[in-house]
Amino acid sequence: MSSRTVIRNGLVITASDEIHADVLIEDGRVVALAATGTPAAESWTAEKTIDATGKYVIPGGVDAHTHMELPFGGTFASDTFETGTRAAAWGGTITIVDFAVQSVGRSLREGLDAWNAKADGNCAIDYAFHMIVSDVNQETLKEMDLLVQEGVTSFKQFMAYPGVFYSDDGQILRAMQRSAENGGLIMMHAENGIAIDVLVEQALARGETDPRFHGEVRKALLEAEATHRAIKLAQVAGAPLYVVHVSAQEAVAEIARARDEGLNVFGETCPQYLFLSTDNLAEPDFEGSKYVCSTPLRPKEHQAALWRGLRTNDLQVVSTDHCPFCFVGQKELGRGDFSKIPNGLPGVENRMDLLHQAVVDGHISRRRWIEIACATPARMFGLYPKKGTIAPGADADIVIYDPHAEQVMSVETHHMNVDYSAYEGKRVTGQVETVLSRGEPVITEREFTGRAGHGVYTPRSTCQYLL
Amino acid sequence: MSSRTVIRNGLVITASDEIHADVLIEDGRVVALAATGTPAAESWTAEKTIDATGKYVIPGGVDAHTHMELPFGGTFASDTFETGTRAAAWGGTITIVDFAVQSVGRSLREGLDAWNAKADGNCAIDYAFHMIVSDVNQETLKEMDLLVQEGVTSFKQFMAYPGVFYSDDGQILRAMQRSAENGGLIMMHAENGIAIDVLVEQALARGETDPRFHGEVRKALLEAEATHRAIKLAQVAGAPLYVVHVSAQEAVAEIARARDEGLNVFGETCPQYLFLSTDNLAEPDFEGSKYVCSTPLRPKEHQAALWRGLRTNDLQVVSTDHCPFCFVGQKELGRGDFSKIPNGLPGVENRMDLLHQAVVDGHISRRRWIEIACATPARMFGLYPKKGTIAPGADADIVIYDPHAEQVMSVETHHMNVDYSAYEGKRVTGQVETVLSRGEPVITEREFTGRAGHGVYTPRSTCQYLL
Amino acid sequence: MSSRTVIRNGLVITASDEIHADVLIEDGRVVALAATGTPAAESWTAEKTIDATGKYVIPGGVDAHTHMELPFGGTFASDTFETGTRAAAWGGTITIVDFAVQSVGRSLREGLDAWNAKADGNCAIDYAFHMIVSDVNQETLKEMDLLVQEGVTSFKQFMAYPGVFYSDDGQILRAMQRSAENGGLIMMHAENGIAIDVLVEQALARGETDPRFHGEVRKALLEAEATHRAIKLAQVAGAPLYVVHVSAQEAVAEIARARDEGLNVFGETCPQYLFLSTDNLAEPDFEGSKYVCSTPLRPKEHQAALWRGLRTNDLQVVSTDHCPFCFVGQKELGRGDFSKIPNGLPGVENRMDLLHQAVVDGHISRRRWIEIACATPARMFGLYPKKGTIAPGADADIVIYDPHAEQVMSVETHHMNVDYSAYEGKRVTGQVETVLSRGEPVITEREFTGRAGHGVYTPRSTCQYLL
Amino acid sequence: MSSRTVIRNGLVITASDEIHADVLIEDGRVVALAATGTPAAESWTAEKTIDATGKYVIPGGVDAHTHMELPFGGTFASDTFETGTRAAAWGGTITIVDFAVQSVGRSLREGLDAWNAKADGNCAIDYAFHMIVSDVNQETLKEMDLLVQEGVTSFKQFMAYPGVFYSDDGQILRAMQRSAENGGLIMMHAENGIAIDVLVEQALARGETDPRFHGEVRKALLEAEATHRAIKLAQVAGAPLYVVHVSAQEAVAEIARARDEGLNVFGETCPQYLFLSTDNLAEPDFEGSKYVCSTPLRPKEHQAALWRGLRTNDLQVVSTDHCPFCFVGQKELGRGDFSKIPNGLPGVENRMDLLHQAVVDGHISRRRWIEIACATPARMFGLYPKKGTIAPGADADIVIYDPHAEQVMSVETHHMNVDYSAYEGKRVTGQVETVLSRGEPVITEREFTGRAGHGVYTPRSTCQYLL
Repeated sequence: MSSRTVIRNGLVITASDEIHADVLIEDGRVVALAATGTPAAESWTAEKTIDATGKYVIPGGVDAHTHMELPFGGTFASDTFETGTRAAAWGGTITIVDFAVQSVGRSLREGLDAWNAKADGNCAIDYAFHMIVSDVNQETLKEMDLLVQEGVTSFKQFMAYPGVFYSDDGQILRAMQRSAENGGLIMMHAENGIAIDVLVEQALARGETDPRFHGEVRKALLEAEATHRAIKLAQVAGAPLYVVHVSAQEAVAEIARARDEGLNVFGETCPQYLFLSTDNLAEPDFEGSKYVCSTPLRPKEHQAALWRGLRTNDLQVVSTDHCPFCFVGQKELGRGDFSKIPNGLPGVENRMDLLHQAVVDGHISRRRWIEIACATPARMFGLYPKKGTIAPGADADIVIYDPHAEQVMSVETHHMNVDYSAYEGKRVTGQVETVLSRGEPVITEREFTGRAGHGVYTPRSTCQYLL
Repeated sequence: MSSRTVIRNGLVITASDEIHADVLIEDGRVVALAATGTPAAESWTAEKTIDATGKYVIPGGVDAHTHMELPFGGTFASDTFETGTRAAAWGGTITIVDFAVQSVGRSLREGLDAWNAKADGNCAIDYAFHMIVSDVNQETLKEMDLLVQEGVTSFKQFMAYPGVFYSDDGQILRAMQRSAENGGLIMMHAENGIAIDVLVEQALARGETDPRFHGEVRKALLEAEATHRAIKLAQVAGAPLYVVHVSAQEAVAEIARARDEGLNVFGETCPQYLFLSTDNLAEPDFEGSKYVCSTPLRPKEHQAALWRGLRTNDLQVVSTDHCPFCFVGQKELGRGDFSKIPNGLPGVENRMDLLHQAVVDGHISRRRWIEIACATPARMFGLYPKKGTIAPGADADIVIYDPHAEQVMSVETHHMNVDYSAYEGKRVTGQVETVLSRGEPVITEREFTGRAGHGVYTPRSTCQYLL
Repeated sequence: MSSRTVIRNGLVITASDEIHADVLIEDGRVVALAATGTPAAESWTAEKTIDATGKYVIPGGVDAHTHMELPFGGTFASDTFETGTRAAAWGGTITIVDFAVQSVGRSLREGLDAWNAKADGNCAIDYAFHMIVSDVNQETLKEMDLLVQEGVTSFKQFMAYPGVFYSDDGQILRAMQRSAENGGLIMMHAENGIAIDVLVEQALARGETDPRFHGEVRKALLEAEATHRAIKLAQVAGAPLYVVHVSAQEAVAEIARARDEGLNVFGETCPQYLFLSTDNLAEPDFEGSKYVCSTPLRPKEHQAALWRGLRTNDLQVVSTDHCPFCFVGQKELGRGDFSKIPNGLPGVENRMDLLHQAVVDGHISRRRWIEIACATPARMFGLYPKKGTIAPGADADIVIYDPHAEQVMSVETHHMNVDYSAYEGKRVTGQVETVLSRGEPVITEREFTGRAGHGVYTPRSTCQYLL
Repeated sequence: MSSRTVIRNGLVITASDEIHADVLIEDGRVVALAATGTPAAESWTAEKTIDATGKYVIPGGVDAHTHMELPFGGTFASDTFETGTRAAAWGGTITIVDFAVQSVGRSLREGLDAWNAKADGNCAIDYAFHMIVSDVNQETLKEMDLLVQEGVTSFKQFMAYPGVFYSDDGQILRAMQRSAENGGLIMMHAENGIAIDVLVEQALARGETDPRFHGEVRKALLEAEATHRAIKLAQVAGAPLYVVHVSAQEAVAEIARARDEGLNVFGETCPQYLFLSTDNLAEPDFEGSKYVCSTPLRPKEHQAALWRGLRTNDLQVVSTDHCPFCFVGQKELGRGDFSKIPNGLPGVENRMDLLHQAVVDGHISRRRWIEIACATPARMFGLYPKKGTIAPGADADIVIYDPHAEQVMSVETHHMNVDYSAYEGKRVTGQVETVLSRGEPVITEREFTGRAGHGVYTPRSTCQYLL
């Protein structure tokens, strides 16, 4: 017997439309939208009615870049799939795409199985996986084909972190060639890690050990260089390319140049690059370590280029690269040596709110907010139209968002399992009120009503965003 | 008592979604969409049911650039609002934005009244007006404010046609400054007419009188020059800019450059630039005159840049610049002097089909087809969400489109009031089957069931597409 | 009977070489160079020996842009050919190319004759003429051919100053086409004067009358626009182009872009744009008027682009645009209305020294100093190898330059006929010691030993600098 | 007692001047130039007079890129220093800068000593060395400082040839940082060898073994990529960069972009890229192997970009990369596997003539010929003013060049020790007649009058061409 929910009187916002409509949900899917107040809408009966008067009704956020429980630098990201997905829901994100990791010398399958095991039964919201390919070889290439068929349709490679995740240009080219054939999408961490490691060594030798030197050695030019290189390799392979966590204006310029040439090159940025800067990295008393991530935070003047890229669609997606490490005991591993600070920031709970604040601040429009945070990540990674929109047939992943509520971001109030907030004290307008995941209430009027295990693994089709 | 229509079993395509949904229409508006086959959909009763099985259900086309009955070179465009809007409907276009003309020395109001009179009671589909500003002065600038308030929110200026529509850079700057204040959008015919007239005179003096010389004197570099100039003037004024009928790759490059800088600069191209070329202008026996329009057709190699621009969103809109002149008696005015050939092509009936062919040919996706032909023109010119989408609350301007039907374009079968087809003999896949304008059937299974006077004047809000 | 002079022991610097050589002069020409101290050098006997130990021996400066006695805004530039050329010599410039002016409605010849009359018998150094073409028509175009044959091989047009010097794009295109045939070089004042005049009118209407508003209305974007337009028109005409007094970084970028495409496009800047800025224009008590010239001074941050352009050869020439007006009685005409301030600065005496200071400051090399100030202007305007180098056969226009002397620029000490110095109080290293014009001493150890009438009119060949 | 030679009646052409002058040589140096026919000139007496009536008198060519006796792919370049320098002289080149090679695991010194031993006593003309750095480490970096002091002031690194000459980006960055300090100039072979090796392996696996596949796998995009990467690394290091053998238009574009930004980035191309193409690589019967070199020959359409780069000074030098391998026994090593064909072409004898042909063909001017072939290579590599010009004090390295002689290039007539000519049958206008090296006749009216051992090692100062 079917369960029906109706959301009445809200402003439904998708990537393309803003409409005053009621939304009918049946068995976890959106089945109908009707103009509010019309007989068609009023004829609906439902077990449950949510009144969204004065609220936005928006698609659930899709965060295409999270790292729950990621092993890094001898420790693990502090959010488990349980704590992390719960926090995501609190922040209006109802799907995450996390990264399974291949270890060097092991198969992709092994990594994927491990990550499936971590997530299975623990998630409050739906999840999917990208695959980090650390070791390209004939076996790996064959496995890529299989994974694409199974719904793991994107593969991340690193031009940074030699000796860990690093792939050389030959490995990258081979993986790109394979993805050009099997429909996979290569996601690239674009920093010249070989050159950066030289600068790291030299900085440490000069006694430059504070967190701020993390930002100085990972130079914007070396992000731009790697971005350009990845683009050229993709062009040689005839493959599309998705550049993760773009932070430098010079890198944005390389992507814009590629797009002017009509290439299928895409760019993601993250809230930390839009709202934080090297000023944070320079905070005293080792506080700067809280902001250590790679690519690093940049000087403030880079932010304008990122906003511009988001407006002109030279950047298409905002994800979080959520990868939290506690200040106490984790970030502290790098006292006296910035290169030992675990790389990563918490953010999965803050993204939708920060981007709504960008709407309030006039950086982007409301529809663009939904496009970069919900619709395009869903399309980019083959989750459309299940995720990323509110339309008949789509999963009922819906957020009732109060655009007028005010909140102050803080470790005191957030739900991520980490002992600090990167946005401590930041006042923003707008707040998640209620969250439905496939029709089930996960957050109900700012109370957690979900459960670990509600969220299911969601296989993905190939990229739906190609030019 | 309300009238209800339901469209069942089709694939509803909008700029952002492709969904299997039934559409409920009441009193001329879309009131609801429901997933096909669900109880919600099946519960609907209606006076009238349209079965769209195997068909696309798409928003009505919005042609933002037509010139019905335009006086030009001593004659008039051969389509009246009656014949032209009927032909538009046959081609799946259910809204046109035509150009009212200010004559030099007269008021905007006078021009607008004249055009309202031409259209009133004659149109088969809804229509709106841009205003051609031929004479910028203190009075005109004040009238612009009033027109914006009344729903005429865009103003066209010409850098070509000295002595006729031409505005000098000072007049352009003033109009742009005004539009920066009142929310109007300046549309620019970007060709350096002063320089072109020198080349025309020189060509004629050399005895180069055939239609193909029309293409040679109106040089791509002079379109690029004017495009750049218009962009810089808009930048000085702090105003957005919409460049009409972009045909040269060098002009696309200027627009792309402006967009990379984050400017609100937009570009429109037309089917003739995508599908025809200087080869047509060079057809013997004065046949080339059929293809004389300005900006002119370009060598074939420009087409790739236009398609690329459409894919990367450096070009946002495809309109027709529909402005037909019969070969006999009209185009013939220019025998022996290409500069006397009336400038313009028929096309309002062909646009949706040609762009669907572009989908078939792989140039663009289905959603992009709807975006450039329906949604973005509606947003660009303030008609959203009434026009350009299928969503609760929108006008029920809907086309049932058969994506498998084959047709051959021809003067024998088209409905435009002109004695030739610019695409004579061209075979395309896809055809309009049924057209609803505000719920009323205008074309019913390829029969005209509309009437002159059904279409109404539609005031517009200001641009809804700004970055 | 021949007169011989030998210059011994100096460092001879040309655009390409720095050599320790003695220079033998006979009958006004350089006849030989020989390595200092060799028997070949020591065998020379001469009536006169100049010892240049510790000094530079450099070619006479060629200032390709001066306006002696120019009528402008109801007054005349305050330097006559007599005072101006004497001051030039004091500053190490031994050739000027001044601008003869065609009045609208009169012939080129008439203008040229008038300017010849002004200069004839009055100049201390050699001179030549460019022709300002204010009125392009069939007669003018024919006259251009004749002038080229007579040695007036460059023609200046203005995109600014409507109603005075202004040419429209058609007139520009025609003149460029003609120069493409006859070998002339079009020099362009590239500012969109039509748009600027609108901004001037609006500024004055707002009560913005101070000199600094001169800089605000003549926007960098409008210089860039006109520069781009001139380039495109030249490209259509197949003609080379020389853009005068480039001041905006955006204009430099347009020229760089044209050069990357391999076009024969050249750019000149002036010392005032390299050393002064809008800070000067904003000086209180109407002092800013001293710095009013067009193109205007720009904010300081433009200077880096100009220096870079000079280093990369995107800018090829530094001239002065010397056009002095006294503060008292002349600049004052514009009190209460910046648009009435005569446009122009004194500078002919300062150029070589300021550019030597740029060598001292590390902006350019010594050889580049000579290239941009002597050799390239000579080549650009067809004076090579008579002028601009020290080589057997060249005119003995030679400066003995003391690179270690210090001086303070001041109205107290300069020789220009104007009541202020644009560089008052500026301390520079390097000073002219002795100046020979065709072997005759004009300045002898900082005493004026020349005479009005020594300088002769010098016909020019066509541009020797084409790619 | 000194020996004197005078060259009379020729047209002396340098990078900056064309003068009718007699040249006086004493003790191997130019001591004086005097205008032909003047008493100063006629007073000279000399043991030897060369009549250059109707001839050019030009500086000796400087070929900054040769590989005599280079070990490569199991064989050696077929020209020894004796045969190669003799051939160079026949072709008007009077200085070569060859490459000493560091082997991996050995010191720079060892490599340099070996190359000095090969050259010492064998050369017909003067020579110098660059150092190929195959193994960057702390020792090597220190040695670089010493070598700079000794006159080996440029260091070549390879982004291609993994396992042989290849340096990774960290090694490149370290060497660049060092050169930023010690004044050395890094020369870069810019091809992404890691990616190319993947493509090579794949091509061979597909059975694509013919020489033409050498051109297909070494993609233009991978040259452009590496060029961009080298530029960014140099920018990070604050060092100048010289890119060797630029062949792809996309690489020229990267260099042009860097130069527009004011960076000290320089580009060299070679005659083979200007005159040959992939058409040659595709010659049947393994003849294509004669044209196998890296970077590879490109499709003909790249040539226009190279000529344009030479005209606009985005490319500054034309060297030969002379590295001949006989067809029989050497090139043949790669039958059935293009990757085993020794990389290299003969050319040291042809460069001056081919570039003179470019003057005849209108690609460049006469002075530009001398600039790119003599003066700039001398400045770039610290040989100025000894080499590269004709001026008092310079070495008397002088060519008497007959601009009207016609010749046909052929293995039958050339003097390089290789069994084919890359330009077999090519007819050119212009020929070397007489060659003086430090005043000594090496070629006398097309007879070899030199001797092995006349040429001496020439230490170099640091780059004299920085912006």
